[in-house]
This record gives sequence, structure tokens and C-alpha cells, in this order.
Amino acid sequence: MTEAAKSTAPLDRLTCVIPAGGVGSRLWPLSRANAPKFLLDLTGSGDSLLRATWARLAPITPPERVIVVTGVSHRDSVIKQLPELLTENLVTESEPKDSSAAIGLAAAILELRDPDAIIGSFAADHVIRNEVLFQRAVETAVRAADQGYIATIGIRPSHAATGFGYIAAGQARGDLAPFDVYDVTQFVEKPDEAIAREYLEHGGYLWNAGMFIARATVLLDQMAEKEPEMVVALREMAAAWGTERGASVRERLWPTLPKIAIDYTVAEPAADAGKMVCVAAHFDWDDVGDFASVANLLTRGRGSDLAVLGDGAQVLSDGSSGIVVSESDRLVALVGVEDIVVVDTADVLLVTTKSRAQDVKNLVGRMKVTGGGHLL
Amino acid sequence: MTEAAKSTAPLDRLTCVIPAGGVGSRLWPLSRANAPKFLLDLTGSGDSLLRATWARLAPITPPERVIVVTGVSHRDSVIKQLPELLTENLVTESEPKDSSAAIGLAAAILELRDPDAIIGSFAADHVIRNEVLFQRAVETAVRAADQGYIATIGIRPSHAATGFGYIAAGQARGDLAPFDVYDVTQFVEKPDEAIAREYLEHGGYLWNAGMFIARATVLLDQMAEKEPEMVVALREMAAAWGTERGASVRERLWPTLPKIAIDYTVAEPAADAGKMVCVAAHFDWDDVGDFASVANLLTRGRGSDLAVLGDGAQVLSDGSSGIVVSESDRLVALVGVEDIVVVDTADVLLVTTKSRAQDVKNLVGRMKVTGGGHLL
Repeated sequence: MTEAAKSTAPLDRLTCVIPAGGVGSRLWPLSRANAPKFLLDLTGSGDSLLRATWARLAPITPPERVIVVTGVSHRDSVIKQLPELLTENLVTESEPKDSSAAIGLAAAILELRDPDAIIGSFAADHVIRNEVLFQRAVETAVRAADQGYIATIGIRPSHAATGFGYIAAGQARGDLAPFDVYDVTQFVEKPDEAIAREYLEHGGYLWNAGMFIARATVLLDQMAEKEPEMVVALREMAAAWGTERGASVRERLWPTLPKIAIDYTVAEPAADAGKMVCVAAHFDWDDVGDFASVANLLTRGRGSDLAVLGDGAQVLSDGSSGIVVSESDRLVALVGVEDIVVVDTADVLLVTTKSRAQDVKNLVGRMKVTGGGHLL
Repeated sequence: MTEAAKSTAPLDRLTCVIPAGGVGSRLWPLSRANAPKFLLDLTGSGDSLLRATWARLAPITPPERVIVVTGVSHRDSVIKQLPELLTENLVTESEPKDSSAAIGLAAAILELRDPDAIIGSFAADHVIRNEVLFQRAVETAVRAADQGYIATIGIRPSHAATGFGYIAAGQARGDLAPFDVYDVTQFVEKPDEAIAREYLEHGGYLWNAGMFIARATVLLDQMAEKEPEMVVALREMAAAWGTERGASVRERLWPTLPKIAIDYTVAEPAADAGKMVCVAAHFDWDDVGDFASVANLLTRGRGSDLAVLGDGAQVLSDGSSGIVVSESDRLVALVGVEDIVVVDTADVLLVTTKSRAQDVKNLVGRMKVTGGGHLL
């Protein structure tokens, strides 16, 4: 980076990082080890969630300022989805190490490219509508990040969701933006129904969409307070990245990294230290965590309460609702089944209900233990 | 037939007729035009219902005294299922004409072979357990038939079934058998739940299992009172049957026959005329009318309330009940679905519930009108 680049506006110093990991086992048997959630089209748009994420970021940052971190086994799939992605911006993990390692390594690489670099981390497998509102929120977050804060984007709840974590918003931060920016008091885990309703009525709680925006150095220094050795290793890997030594250094250090989510190494400690702010945003967001979410996404605002996903899907319904996901062109006939979930793949057929959709994860867990792993 | 044969005991003059028609559309998509219910194995025994019917009759009548009436399109399938069936005992219908024509033609053929012939008609697609009790009931019915009555076998209800027609039993007929034979007061249609419970408590109502036993001539003469032209045509076809003229006579007359169930041409008029008696039987009987019946048959007396049918079926259940019918070897995973019906065939997947299983018929009816007939 030249001196000129360093003096550019904050948004021009933003690099977006897309951590593309996680199978999404509650979406099995659609999601598999070799077909993780971020490679799926869960909206019927024709694009994978990863491709949609890329497209959403395109108006904010040019292709050369988007980094994807993914497992080595997904390298080719990611390149196929994102032909514009620069080779030096594809960071592969030899084994999954959760989000601290993935985002941390990207931050360490960026910090070397530009000491003033701002990193924005956005999940590869979420769905967002109202993209202009998303862009506004990112711009606001980037300005806060430039001031040295670690910023997150929280979503104004539209209902008492129990499937998401929440952000408790504190003091409004008019000094950072005229409106919609708040101190983060704390991050709270997925609530039960009653608490989710309290949050909704209270108004000061936002959905945690797992977006983090900060100067790369600020993020790493925050992480180092909790995991100093990890950050030393990440910076050592970053220094060797793209050189002849790169592979051997990664091979030596990556396996030593702890598996830990960035929520615990950065977000929560930063909130406790008063360094975390959130932008309260109004766009439609969903982490599409299970088939009930997929169904709701697909039927929202439409007349039918039966969602169908799949290019060749043929569905005949008699008094039925829910979702049919089909990878075949055979006829799926439903008679009098409400809130049903049918997922029809070549080697597995799943039948459950929207209210039990979360429990698919348990079944997958059971199969890991009792056999059937080849179907996962 | 020789004079000696005519003087034999009534049971030795019994010929069993198996009308093998009817697709069984409530069992779609397992049942199809080319895979009607009687060709299916619905008990997991490895035998089709037709083969099981044949085997059930074998201790009562030798192979040369069993006639099968079926559609021309099922000729080869029937021969494959019943290699012991004599060629002259396979009666084919050029088009389906319901049970009066099918059973009536068999009766007319038998009447010519032996004026004292007794015909017993037993559906090709019902399930019976306690076969010895079935044999006893047939023997009793045959004795009543020899006396000139039209006999039916009614099943003592085990529960307040709404899926079967009922027989109202009247006066006990100790003159015909020491016990278990009654006049038939009337045949009644499938009742609603409340009436079915009344029938059960009353004790004088039996399930109508559609079995009719009578002298062939008595049956035809009874039919002639309601449908005289039909019986003339049936007797004309029978006279030509097996001769050079057989095909041309059938071709001319069969299409002219009315489509009418034997219940309306024989059973009900005979009951009204006091010529109908019933044997009250205690064997397990089911007409396996829908997937709920199939499920109940398969789970009866077993610990599990999840039935699985299909040689290669693989099912993984988490808190689920009902039935999985699979023609493939792919995994069917069920999570939290109760009383579910899943039928997994090569080109159609059906999902319904035990309580809605009857409504599959409506869907099939809709497909006939709106397209999709190639899947029926």
C-alpha cells in the first residue's frame, strides 16, 4: 500500500471478509460435508448464499477488497462460485478452527497490507433483503470502526425470535453518527419465548447478525487480550502468507490454534471494555438456520403457505402447508399435512415439521455416532 | 362333470372365484393402473395379496376349482403370481365392469360345468389371519348355500370402524348351523363414528367383508330379478366360453354390461327377500383400504408404532410414528412426525397422515382431471 492509499476515506480502506465455513447440519440432507450451507441456493434465486453475499458486498467494496476464508476441500467450489475472487484473497484452512482463527488470519493479512485497513466480516450463508439499508449500515459501522471502535450491525427484531442471539443496546452514540449507533451493553444467548417477547417489547435488543467491523489492528489487539498466543501465531502466518514459507508456516501453526468463536475472543470482551458499538439496522435479515426459516423466507408476503424449493420440483398439495425441497423431478404429493418439511434428495428423504426443524441437528449428531456418516 | 361329481358333498361342489380388479386408488402411489392393489405385498410377507388369497383358499378347494377374473392387462401378472391356475379358470375382462359382471360370468361358466355348482366369491386384495376360522366359516356358508340361501361371511367388529359397510344380523338360524348363522336384515353403508360405536355396542352388526357363497344358479337367478338382460348376456357368454365363438361373443356382449356392484344386484335384494344369511366369523380381517390400515396391520401387536414396508427400506426415526413404504433403498429420516404416512416410489413421493389417508383417493381423482394420469 502507498502512503496515498492510507489517507483515503474509511470506506475505501474497508476489506470485506467472508468466512465460508460450517456445514449447517440443521439443513441436512440438503447440506452435506461437500455441499455446505453457503454453497446452497436456499432462496430459489438461482445463486448460492455465498454468491449472493458476494453480490451484496460488490456495491460496497470492489472485488480486490473481498477475502474469502474457507476449508481446503471447498476451494474449487468457492472459485467456481466467485470467479472474480483474486487468488491472493482466497484463504484456505487446512482444518476448521472456528471464526476467531478464520477472521483473525484475514485481519492479520490485511494489517500487513495496510496498517489502517478496516476489516468487515460478513457470514457467507445469511440472507439479506433491502440491500441499500445494508450498505448504509455498513458505511456507518465503518466510520465507527475508523474511530477505533469495534462495530457490529444489529437487526431490529420483527418478531420474538428464539433462534438468534441478541445484542443489548446501551447509550446512543450521537458522537459517532446522528442516529442508530449505540454502545453495546452485552451480547445475550438465544432466549426462550417469554424472554424473546420481553426483548421485543423493551425495544433495546437487536438480533446479533454476527457482523463485525473494525480496524484490523484493533480487532487483533482485542483478540490478543484473550488469546495472546493465537494472535502471535496468526501474525506469523500472515507474515509468511504468499511467500515460499507460507505453506510450511501454516502447516506448523494452524493446527495449534484453539477452536473458538470470535464472539468470545473479541465481541464480548470488547463490549465489557466499552469498545463495542452497534449500528441498529432495519433491513430484512435471516441466518436461515433451519428448514422452518427457509420456508418462512420463501412464503413471506406470498399468498401460499407452502414453499417449494428446487428447479425441477413438482408438488401437488391437498390442504397442506410447510416446505418441499426437492433435488429430483419426481412428484411430491401432500395430503393434509400442515407445517410439514419434506426434503427429497437422491439418497436421503427427510420428513419433519417446521416446529421440529431444529431437531434435525440431533439426528445428524446421532448418525455421526451410530453410522450413516457417508450420508452426512 | 359326471353324475357322480354332482352327488358329492357341498364343499366338493364349491368353486372359489377371486375377482381381481380394482386399482385401490387410496393406496396410490404404491398402487398403479399396472400395479393394482391385489398385486402388492401390503403385509411384508413377500407375497402379493392375490397370492395370499390363493394360499388361503388352497386348503378349502384344489387349484382346479379356483377361478380368477381379472382385466386383460393383468393376465400375465396373474399367471406369474398363480402358476397353478388352470388356463380355463382364468377369465379376463376386456374392460372393467364391476363385480356383478365379473362374479356373474364366473357363476354362469360354473353353472354349465355343474348345475349344482356352488360359487364362493372372495376378494383378491383382503388380508385375513386365523385361517382355520376362515375355513370353518366357509364350510358353514357352503352348507347354507347348498340349502338354496345366498350366504355371506360377516366379521365380528373388534372396534368402531367407519371404513367398512356393515351387515345387520337378524334371527339366528339354528336350522342351518348350531350357531353363528343369522338372517341378514339389511346391508348398511359405512357409518360415521357415532353410529359405528352404536353398532359395536349393539352387537348385532358385522363387518361386510364382501364374501358371497351360493349355488351358481341361485346367484344368477337372483341377479336376473334386478338385471335380467345382463344375466341373459352372461349366460350367452358362458355358453360360448372356451369355444371358437368365445372371443367374438364376449367382444359383442361384454361392453353392453352395466357397471354395477354385486351388492346391488344380489346381496341387498336377496336380503330384502329373506334369502340372505350370514355366518358371523371371528377371524382377523381387513380390506386394507388405505395406508392407515396398512400401518395398523403391520404394527398390530408389536412394540413399535412405526411400520416399515419395503425390502430395501431404511428408516431412521426420531420420535415419529405411522408408516413408511419404500420402494427404494435410500434413507428415510423422520423427525417428530406423528401418524405420518410416507410412500417413497421411483417417480412419486406421497406424504400424508393416517387420519387423512382416505383422502388420497381425492387427489388421484384430481390428477385424472388435471393431468398427471401417467403417474396413476
